[in-house]
Amino acid sequence: MRMYDLIAKKRNGEILTEEEIRSMIDGYVKGEVPDYQMSAMLMAIYLKGMTDTETAILTDAVAHSGDMVDLTPIEGIKVDKHSTGGVGDKTTLVVAPIVAACGVKVAKMSGRGLGHTGGTVDKLESIPGMRTTLTEEEFFKVVNTTGLSVIGQSGNLAPGDKKLYALRDVTATVESIPLIAASIMSKKLAAGSDCILLDVKTGSGAFMKTLEDSVTLAEKMVAIGEHAGKKTMALITNMDIPLGNLIGNSLEVIEAVETLKGRGPKDLTEVCLNLASGMLWLAGKGTPEECMAMAEKAIADGSALNRLAAMVKAQGGDPSVILDPSLFAKAPFEREVKAVKKGYLVHMNTEQCGIASSMLGAGRVTKESLIDYTAGIALKKKVGQEVEEGETIAVLYTSKQELFDAAEEEFVKAVTIADGRPEPEPLIYARVTREGVKNLIG
Amino acid sequence: MRMYDLIAKKRNGEILTEEEIRSMIDGYVKGEVPDYQMSAMLMAIYLKGMTDTETAILTDAVAHSGDMVDLTPIEGIKVDKHSTGGVGDKTTLVVAPIVAACGVKVAKMSGRGLGHTGGTVDKLESIPGMRTTLTEEEFFKVVNTTGLSVIGQSGNLAPGDKKLYALRDVTATVESIPLIAASIMSKKLAAGSDCILLDVKTGSGAFMKTLEDSVTLAEKMVAIGEHAGKKTMALITNMDIPLGNLIGNSLEVIEAVETLKGRGPKDLTEVCLNLASGMLWLAGKGTPEECMAMAEKAIADGSALNRLAAMVKAQGGDPSVILDPSLFAKAPFEREVKAVKKGYLVHMNTEQCGIASSMLGAGRVTKESLIDYTAGIALKKKVGQEVEEGETIAVLYTSKQELFDAAEEEFVKAVTIADGRPEPEPLIYARVTREGVKNLIG
Repeated sequence: MRMYDLIAKKRNGEILTEEEIRSMIDGYVKGEVPDYQMSAMLMAIYLKGMTDTETAILTDAVAHSGDMVDLTPIEGIKVDKHSTGGVGDKTTLVVAPIVAACGVKVAKMSGRGLGHTGGTVDKLESIPGMRTTLTEEEFFKVVNTTGLSVIGQSGNLAPGDKKLYALRDVTATVESIPLIAASIMSKKLAAGSDCILLDVKTGSGAFMKTLEDSVTLAEKMVAIGEHAGKKTMALITNMDIPLGNLIGNSLEVIEAVETLKGRGPKDLTEVCLNLASGMLWLAGKGTPEECMAMAEKAIADGSALNRLAAMVKAQGGDPSVILDPSLFAKAPFEREVKAVKKGYLVHMNTEQCGIASSMLGAGRVTKESLIDYTAGIALKKKVGQEVEEGETIAVLYTSKQELFDAAEEEFVKAVTIADGRPEPEPLIYARVTREGVKNLIG
Repeated sequence: MRMYDLIAKKRNGEILTEEEIRSMIDGYVKGEVPDYQMSAMLMAIYLKGMTDTETAILTDAVAHSGDMVDLTPIEGIKVDKHSTGGVGDKTTLVVAPIVAACGVKVAKMSGRGLGHTGGTVDKLESIPGMRTTLTEEEFFKVVNTTGLSVIGQSGNLAPGDKKLYALRDVTATVESIPLIAASIMSKKLAAGSDCILLDVKTGSGAFMKTLEDSVTLAEKMVAIGEHAGKKTMALITNMDIPLGNLIGNSLEVIEAVETLKGRGPKDLTEVCLNLASGMLWLAGKGTPEECMAMAEKAIADGSALNRLAAMVKAQGGDPSVILDPSLFAKAPFEREVKAVKKGYLVHMNTEQCGIASSMLGAGRVTKESLIDYTAGIALKKKVGQEVEEGETIAVLYTSKQELFDAAEEEFVKAVTIADGRPEPEPLIYARVTREGVKNLIG
């Protein structure tokens, strides 16, 4: 099989066979297919697309390019969760403990921050002593004893995806729905859980800016998961405004804890309850309504918070900061951002908020940058609220005072104040399962 | 300027600016733009196209990647000719001497055989002693004294094209009309003539299989030439059947000589007269009718043949074989191919004829193969003629008897005999100038 012929076939809009896709990925991972051929193929895929079957095979081939994690040493059903990434998205820290408290195991590998979005692993590492690199044996033990564990991705999980992603990143072929779906799902398949709940973000702070693209991506990913024999569901959730009020690393852990104590912001609480009950439903714990009631109870009775504290302790972290988040180190500097005029906060460009937070030290400017765990943004007003001239909209936090000016400038650009109250946006747009798309709005 | 952004722009179907195209080619030739980015760009160009202006700029940038030949030491107007390649296409050997005999200079760099098509340089080298590598000084002197010179391409002519072509060749991006046009024309612009006559072949033996694609390619190339200030015209000619009756290297020189003596096959003679008068017209020698009369006279009075003999002598070749082609070495082995049934010769797949000739030793199987100058095919019957069962259709020639079987098998596959006389095909379909396409048939 010549790579040339496969490129020509895809270029002509034809469908690649299973054998062709597997041989291509195998050859690429082994270094037999050079980057310059793969990049031509990626551009052809970008412009000509892939069928659901092609995408499912591609995903499976990429998943099998490295270790396939075998979670059988963990008892019971394991449910994984993936978010396509957003600003202020600390849902894993809330959802995994709820699900574990309801008797379903969560053995999750998470990523680090990328671009304007934060990463769960970075957030967890803001907890003193917390380890996110465990041996497989330790990982299984933490899940078996506490019901959950969240760690960083192992080195040999879908190495083909790493290689492909690096190439897509420099050849303008990242924003292809089949390639995005295959990239995400290859790691989920390799990670070994039985069920997968996908949180596909949509809006100005999301990778997918339009609802239509988000639904298409969700459908592709659900098809891939089901094709691989995993029960898979996606929720399409709003990322047109940041989720919750706190953006940063320790700031987001604090807000997650508040949410587990039942005192979280309304939007974050609602999204977390929906994600958690979705995971419970996938695991066969009951009807959607029963699963929602279980999730609510796990917050109300404190069992979910206890699970988080137990996991933190099992991974070497200090559980006292979970039970009392006021113990977290505070940023030495803060600056209030005031409304320049009276009116309604009608829009907040979420990507720019994320960039501003990153500029304060919460994210990595380069791959090697160190993170300032205390840095970030506390939103005092959110979209839809009325503000007076000079009223505080947000507080910026950092350890390096000299970072304020540029970050504030970026944040201010993100905020639009105007007359007239804006229409409220839905939090959850749709639910996508193998049965199809269920619209949850309007 | 980031290559990433240029790839994304073309991927989205946008138009690249002059600065962007020049910086991309400059960076690629210098090795600053890696192959894997250029191949993604090439695929995006393949699938999204380029405007005439983009293509003209690309061509100019590629032309300037190496030496721009300065032909001013040669007096008078210089006219170049390019054929997109065909089987039995020995027109340069006929046309250049005619044009020179009529007082217009031809300082031409030619290529070697590629795939199933022969190359003028290989054909010339079948003449004993003939040199096709000259210094620039020698080249100019031959043109100034004999009116013409045909040599191989110099090493540093459009090196960017060489690098791009090698990449296209392995990434399934060869068959893109703007890229083909830019590739051909970059070398023509760098070669320095004042006018360019393009012979765009169409049909089963041509690179462009359909008339529509051939016309589009011709239009693109004419636009590029005129954009660069060169008077440019294209003729669309038939390559659905081999041109003339002889295919090979010395065989084609023999047929070219016969044509210059006024005894050539009708199809070859007609195409050559049209190409030659087109070149004379481009050089401003008169109306198309006057130019045709001049070309016919150059054959009739023997002046064109003398020019060819003079050029061969000036380049170290033996002119006696030109004046008396029976002096050419003959292939030691020949085999007749007979008609398997009675009927009309309705089709001859020209690409397969070229492959058969190449298999007999006339072409290169690999880049390093040596050519058997005596090998080739003499067609005894052409499309449209009636044949009896067992009648000789063609004679195959080679120096290696063991090559006959496979070559004959290939040749026989190319030939279709059926009842009913086929409609004759036109030889010249259209003439393309800056004024537009003039249909010459129907």
